[in-house]
Amino acid sequence: MALPRGYLFAAGEGGLRTHGSGPDVALIYSAVPARVAALFTANRVKAAPVLVSRDHLRRGRGIAQAIVVNAGNANCATGEHGMRAARMCAKRAAELLQIAPHQVLLASTGVIGVPLDARRITDLLPALVRRLHPECCAAVSQAILTTDTRPKIASRTISLDGQRITILGMAKGAGMIYPRLAPPAPAARSATMLAFLFTDAAVESRYLRKAAQRACERSFNRISVDGDTSTNDTLFLMANGAAGNAPVREKTPAAPRFFEALVEVAQQLALELVRDGEGAKKVAEIRVERARSEQQAEAIARAIALSPLVKTALAGADPNWGRILSACGNAGVAFDPGGVDIYINRIRVCKNGAAANFDEAAANQQLAAKEVLIRVVLSQGKTEARFWTCDFTEDYIRINASYRT
Amino acid sequence: MALPRGYLFAAGEGGLRTHGSGPDVALIYSAVPARVAALFTANRVKAAPVLVSRDHLRRGRGIAQAIVVNAGNANCATGEHGMRAARMCAKRAAELLQIAPHQVLLASTGVIGVPLDARRITDLLPALVRRLHPECCAAVSQAILTTDTRPKIASRTISLDGQRITILGMAKGAGMIYPRLAPPAPAARSATMLAFLFTDAAVESRYLRKAAQRACERSFNRISVDGDTSTNDTLFLMANGAAGNAPVREKTPAAPRFFEALVEVAQQLALELVRDGEGAKKVAEIRVERARSEQQAEAIARAIALSPLVKTALAGADPNWGRILSACGNAGVAFDPGGVDIYINRIRVCKNGAAANFDEAAANQQLAAKEVLIRVVLSQGKTEARFWTCDFTEDYIRINASYRT
Repeated sequence: MALPRGYLFAAGEGGLRTHGSGPDVALIYSAVPARVAALFTANRVKAAPVLVSRDHLRRGRGIAQAIVVNAGNANCATGEHGMRAARMCAKRAAELLQIAPHQVLLASTGVIGVPLDARRITDLLPALVRRLHPECCAAVSQAILTTDTRPKIASRTISLDGQRITILGMAKGAGMIYPRLAPPAPAARSATMLAFLFTDAAVESRYLRKAAQRACERSFNRISVDGDTSTNDTLFLMANGAAGNAPVREKTPAAPRFFEALVEVAQQLALELVRDGEGAKKVAEIRVERARSEQQAEAIARAIALSPLVKTALAGADPNWGRILSACGNAGVAFDPGGVDIYINRIRVCKNGAAANFDEAAANQQLAAKEVLIRVVLSQGKTEARFWTCDFTEDYIRINASYRT
Repeated sequence: MALPRGYLFAAGEGGLRTHGSGPDVALIYSAVPARVAALFTANRVKAAPVLVSRDHLRRGRGIAQAIVVNAGNANCATGEHGMRAARMCAKRAAELLQIAPHQVLLASTGVIGVPLDARRITDLLPALVRRLHPECCAAVSQAILTTDTRPKIASRTISLDGQRITILGMAKGAGMIYPRLAPPAPAARSATMLAFLFTDAAVESRYLRKAAQRACERSFNRISVDGDTSTNDTLFLMANGAAGNAPVREKTPAAPRFFEALVEVAQQLALELVRDGEGAKKVAEIRVERARSEQQAEAIARAIALSPLVKTALAGADPNWGRILSACGNAGVAFDPGGVDIYINRIRVCKNGAAANFDEAAANQQLAAKEVLIRVVLSQGKTEARFWTCDFTEDYIRINASYRT
């Protein structure tokens, strides 16, 4: 896997996991200050690491050099103690790396409401700093997992200005996955999905933020496992410029090429998250086509992806298109039910809002596959939107009815 | 059980059920024309019986005398054929009862998208008309069930103007239960919950509609089993005046007394629906207190009640208040997380947005009960709202992953 220049990684065990053991703390370091685009959860309850990172980015004017991440404890709903714990971690990492505290960003995932013992992290940091190495990115992608069954990591290399630039991404999250990420504006809204993207490209700040947000709208903000948006969702996109290209700016030829690679990495990771969703046995791409507007298409795709009845029908490989149509009707947007066609892969199961003549056994067979495409054709315009969801299985219930106890 | 005067009921088997057998068609008849308040689903996809009932009420200026109900087939997404089928049922009942077709209302529940064979209903209607009897209300409450495990029926008798008046209610629905009922205005939105309420009180039309809507906002519109609003949700409140009281109007002393009895019947039925929710083993009342506004309290209570993570924690009897707080943050309304206290029955599990000092085993024990009260105290004002939800269990998945196949 191609790695971007100038990034070093380390992971270790701080004993923060309540279930099992293994690495649960990670440090990521860019040898030079990097421009950072950050997106945080839309949940109004925001974890301490989200609040502290937001503050640090403001103070550092969008420049940072390190990320401290932990799994096992979300450091959310932990009051002032949680804020102090988060700041202590940043401060210790800053001392060891000889950078300013606000150049350190934070992210946490795990149980909500349990005080974080910061020393489990700060005591480990010296060892992590010694271990920093480009190849340890795989160890980091492992250390940040919670109920995930496998790490998610992706990389793309393209050529810009004759320079090879690489985008590396890693992400975690199998439950409480319904990211609705927004920029850290004063009115910012706040998921636990964590996604970290690193590039050695030089990218102008404003375009970096725009690219991060747009890429997120086509990937992480278009997936759901359970419809519960976490208090800790965080996306960091770091660009350290180590590739030596001319900075990518909007409306330059390099911009769409950089953006395309970024979307590819983000979509690959987002899809991996859904595939590994808690209890998930299959993934469905919901594609709403021929909509009047992006907003209409997206609202309908989202409503289908979130419907427990669609998700359980998916689990049962039941071509129950009536549930799909009913979910469309709950999207909160106007449309003509009589103009709706629905396809399961290539089989049209609903024509003009009523039953199409189709082979039920064949549709059932298509739905038994691990990846399914559900197309809803509105016949109202030319816009389309995609959303990815997984089936809702007994395992999801089992995992979540006994998460802590 | 006390019965309102002037209502006759009958049930029979039309062979509409795809699973099992038993009565699936019901006829309800008021000996005299009754004022009707109707509320239909907010789903934008509306079943034929909803559309036809809406039309009939408009034509009959809110007066009707009969209801034909069937289970086994929702007559939704059935196109023009479905509309004709619905009208045929009304027409046949009207002929037999010697009333106008628009005095017959319709309601259906069952699978979506399967053409309804109207003759299975119309052929049965003559026998139903012959069987009409006040005591057959119990048979009707049975015939309208789908995945329900038991009928839901409730009755209250009060004295108004020296006259005894009775309100009888019946309801069905165990899945696709997240009613958001609205009046049949042109912009009406459209669940499959069916609720029928009958009173022998004389009630002025305008107040009847207002009372129905307000009672619904404290009962059926405040429950969820799975968060999926059906295409067929229907509430009919019929008032035939057979008790001979002076018509109940707004701002008369009789109004609050009538309303209180109506709310009691509606709440008892709504709570029964949640208790019998698909796979449900327990019920939680979510009570948000000390809110700034009704809207804030209601949005937060709703968000908690709909969260799969709260509902699975409930199934596991896990006092995971962090999930409750996180759900509050997803309600789309502003509040101060630092001012939130959360109680499970009488145990305070969260104080000022962080962990309270509580006995985990005791909280776990409280949650193991069949009925639990979750109180979220916002400390922002004086308003409160209640919402009822059930736990999310493996049985829910089993039932819905194999509903048709």
